[in-house]
Amino acid sequence: MQRQSWQHWTAAAIVAAGLLSFDAASAQDDVRQRAVHSVLEQQATAWNRGDIPGFMAGYENAETTTFVGTDVNRGYQKVLERYLKRYPTPEAMGKLTFSNLEILPLSEEYASALGQWKLERATKDGGNVGGYFTLLLRKTAAGWRIILDHTS
Amino acid sequence: MQRQSWQHWTAAAIVAAGLLSFDAASAQDDVRQRAVHSVLEQQATAWNRGDIPGFMAGYENAETTTFVGTDVNRGYQKVLERYLKRYPTPEAMGKLTFSNLEILPLSEEYASALGQWKLERATKDGGNVGGYFTLLLRKTAAGWRIILDHTS
Repeated sequence: MQRQSWQHWTAAAIVAAGLLSFDAASAQDDVRQRAVHSVLEQQATAWNRGDIPGFMAGYENAETTTFVGTDVNRGYQKVLERYLKRYPTPEAMGKLTFSNLEILPLSEEYASALGQWKLERATKDGGNVGGYFTLLLRKTAAGWRIILDHTS
Repeated sequence: MQRQSWQHWTAAAIVAAGLLSFDAASAQDDVRQRAVHSVLEQQATAWNRGDIPGFMAGYENAETTTFVGTDVNRGYQKVLERYLKRYPTPEAMGKLTFSNLEILPLSEEYASALGQWKLERATKDGGNVGGYFTLLLRKTAAGWRIILDHTS
């Protein structure tokens, strides 16, 4: 009986360790999802105060940062210039909302996100537009940052 | 001198180990890039023989497999049905080429890809179309498979 009891305890300990490591992984994913969510929320907030450089803070400040739309813009500066050119005024920027966000943590360093975007604007300012985006984010020294944005 | 000589050897060994581990990481990335490249090549080959199910073999056969275009199609079966509906004949499928492929291995399990696609078709079959795609791939038991495709 003594031996069987030890076996039970050992089995219970293995199951508990398994559950704990599952919980730890799941808790880490949760932390990553919230961190990425927060980056996108801060982007929308910056956009809606007419602050494109503030919105750009969500992207990695790197030559490799890539925006794919109807063409490919490579480098933080190029992506910034594209936004400044396409949205020259707070009226053209309109009110941005992100919805149906799905964030998939891939590793300690990378995460993917999918969501919908919508710009509400007066007809004279270009009218409402919207679509889908998929992002690849990297955890940089400065926090989670978008390294690849495909918006359509 | 004896001691200094050991120090030199130790320093040399540390540098060599560093280079080897760098080479190993770089070689692994190379293997992953070629594996992903090969999946996309096989997709194009299947497409160009009019074989949509063969083309679909590049996607993970899972409920979570997602195609983002003008809307979101979720699940392998839904993505397959979308292709069958949009490209009902070999003429509508046309000749597919992928170009300017950039494959970024993210980890042992995930990789990202960016590229251009082009369909050459007769005008009566819808004419030429093309654009960009970004993919997220996962290394499954069956090999590297697309889990998220954003095509615009």
